Amino acid sequence: MVGLHDNVRIDSKRLWSTILHSAEIGPGKSGGLRRLALTDEDRVMRDQFVAWCEQAGCSVTVDRVGNIFARRAGADDSLPPVVMGSHLDTQVAGGRYDGILGVLAGLEVIRTLNDQGAVTKRPIEVVSWTNEEGARFAPPMMASGAFAGVYDVDWVLGIKDDDGKVFGDELKRIGYAGDTLVGGREFDAYFELHIEQGPDLERTDVHVGVVTGGFTTRGMIIDVHGETAHAGPTPMDKRRNATVGAAMLIVAANDIGWAYHPEGRSSTVRILCWPNKPGILSDYAQVTVDFRHPETAKTEQMVVDFKSAMTQAAERANVEMEIAQTWGFGDLNFDDECLDLIRRSSDHLGIPYREMLSLAGHDAYHISRVSPTALIFSPCHDGITHNEAEHIELDYTVPSVNVLLQSVLARADR
Amino acid sequence: MVGLHDNVRIDSKRLWSTILHSAEIGPGKSGGLRRLALTDEDRVMRDQFVAWCEQAGCSVTVDRVGNIFARRAGADDSLPPVVMGSHLDTQVAGGRYDGILGVLAGLEVIRTLNDQGAVTKRPIEVVSWTNEEGARFAPPMMASGAFAGVYDVDWVLGIKDDDGKVFGDELKRIGYAGDTLVGGREFDAYFELHIEQGPDLERTDVHVGVVTGGFTTRGMIIDVHGETAHAGPTPMDKRRNATVGAAMLIVAANDIGWAYHPEGRSSTVRILCWPNKPGILSDYAQVTVDFRHPETAKTEQMVVDFKSAMTQAAERANVEMEIAQTWGFGDLNFDDECLDLIRRSSDHLGIPYREMLSLAGHDAYHISRVSPTALIFSPCHDGITHNEAEHIELDYTVPSVNVLLQSVLARADR
Repeated sequence: MVGLHDNVRIDSKRLWSTILHSAEIGPGKSGGLRRLALTDEDRVMRDQFVAWCEQAGCSVTVDRVGNIFARRAGADDSLPPVVMGSHLDTQVAGGRYDGILGVLAGLEVIRTLNDQGAVTKRPIEVVSWTNEEGARFAPPMMASGAFAGVYDVDWVLGIKDDDGKVFGDELKRIGYAGDTLVGGREFDAYFELHIEQGPDLERTDVHVGVVTGGFTTRGMIIDVHGETAHAGPTPMDKRRNATVGAAMLIVAANDIGWAYHPEGRSSTVRILCWPNKPGILSDYAQVTVDFRHPETAKTEQMVVDFKSAMTQAAERANVEMEIAQTWGFGDLNFDDECLDLIRRSSDHLGIPYREMLSLAGHDAYHISRVSPTALIFSPCHDGITHNEAEHIELDYTVPSVNVLLQSVLARADR
Repeated sequence: MVGLHDNVRIDSKRLWSTILHSAEIGPGKSGGLRRLALTDEDRVMRDQFVAWCEQAGCSVTVDRVGNIFARRAGADDSLPPVVMGSHLDTQVAGGRYDGILGVLAGLEVIRTLNDQGAVTKRPIEVVSWTNEEGARFAPPMMASGAFAGVYDVDWVLGIKDDDGKVFGDELKRIGYAGDTLVGGREFDAYFELHIEQGPDLERTDVHVGVVTGGFTTRGMIIDVHGETAHAGPTPMDKRRNATVGAAMLIVAANDIGWAYHPEGRSSTVRILCWPNKPGILSDYAQVTVDFRHPETAKTEQMVVDFKSAMTQAAERANVEMEIAQTWGFGDLNFDDECLDLIRRSSDHLGIPYREMLSLAGHDAYHISRVSPTALIFSPCHDGITHNEAEHIELDYTVPSVNVLLQSVLARADR
């Protein structure tokens, strides 16, 4: 179906060796990675990625929030590029593949085209988005969000980590405060390959997931205001312990997740209390929660339920609560034409696929606002992710990379 | 009744000016203090205290955990000293008087004796115990505990703060790693004057509290072990979020406090979660709780109730929990003879007193294990404490300091 390059396949051993090389940069404690955004480990990985791209003949540009674009010229280089990518940063105790597969598969596609001496009509780019995980600087998917106009660039540059270090300063420190404008240019299409982060592909022995959309996700940060007091003498009815109010919110969010089980789920990923010290009741706490459900209306109802629980918890703990920040993603559809191209590429290669929804956030969500976008999943062992034990096998990973290759080629020669 | 010095009174203006001077060292944000143990602020306060003591003719020694002893010689300097004291460190957002009053009142007693040219039979000492608050290095009352043999000295020296800084290193850094052995010497008696940290004295317009004992307090640190996983895809029945287990413990502890209200109370002062980051469920959490009741059996029952709640919470959150550390204080009586001396001193001065229990922990608890000990309370405005708004008035504070003076004099001339 596809065109001139029907029989091209990626070099799976080269891809795997590239992934293993990445797995040595910022090793975790038990086989995974700790490569937080804008750390020295991130810098070493970025330098390596840029070197690989330049060795592959690409021209590399970096934008003001540190997103790296490696470009393989097209026959008509004035046309918008077909872009592949994901992210190279990890969670604090993350795996070797989350995000990384998508970037390094993109590099492998370019290397394969070089091997073939292929010339595509449109340019092809690989992008590594800065700080997808949000593990060091919240929120997650920050730099793809800035690219898509969801976040203001200066706001992103001013965000601080838990040690008070500023995103923009750290970006400069590692040498990736680029001068290219963030966003404002056209992609022909954006394809992101990512591990599933769930067990369904492996369980059904299908190696390609065509992601048609996401679970609707709504997240928020709640500030809880109480009053400091001595932990001993203060009688129960005079206490305004922010930690107790925050704990009630966490339990309520968890109960709501169970009420919408098995489709729905809720998470509390973060609680901060102040002063959080022996002998004193805390006067301030902050809780980060989110709610996910495949049906948008159900997610919205979970939020309504939670707000009602907030009111009760505030009264019961004798504290004040307010929602300080909200976000949402997942309730949108990817591009029909791009999705269909993935289906046809899979068919062409004789690789079965299944349609699925993503439960996690991905840079592709943001990019879908400014470009035709599709997300491809490949299997992930036991669905374990955001964990050093995250694991994939080469033989069930290669099919999705070849689907990516065929889809990008078809799109670039269109 | 008392002896040679019946008509001696402290210099209240000098005492107040000394307290105000202390209130300038490590100022907080709203009139209180932030003078955490072994910080630069603590060093400046210690230097000032030592200078004041030496100006008052005292010889100063510092023990291996940084406790400072200022000694006014007695006629028979081979006799065990009568000791007064408390602590000069504060909470992270603490008041100007908690602990500080007890140390500086002791200094004022010595200055008053100097004014009189008084010679006492026994030596008199003022002690400032290191790190009573435990706000930076847990547990609280650490250095008086080491003095009383409750804690091992090397264990104390090895404790780390939240930034990983070591107690012993920080003590050296500020110049207060003394060479005197910790404990192992006799006190004739120990008198601690402290603000009440409750509203009862003020409410009843009584200015001296004779503290006969304490609320029985039982505290513990619970470790919660779950598993990291992606906050999105993981279904509710596969989650092992340590933060959720910890939150259930906090809510349970709070409910138990209410079940024993008004006499009983419970506190959760501290929760730590790891990694506590966006996008990932935490695999480890730590919660610090305590339970207090005037009746020891009731406090013990609160702990039994809590352990039962722990079992339920561990099952409900699908995590493991274990008690990592426990402590207790308050279920002991102070020395009858010392208490009676305080009563008689108050009567002699025509100052009404009331008997009471302490709800908070004090260095005096530990010292009561190795010395006849008594604790005197003076009023505290609205009972507000461990809060920058902590406030006392000179006119209702001076009576307790004169009671301290008379009691110490009587004991020292015994």
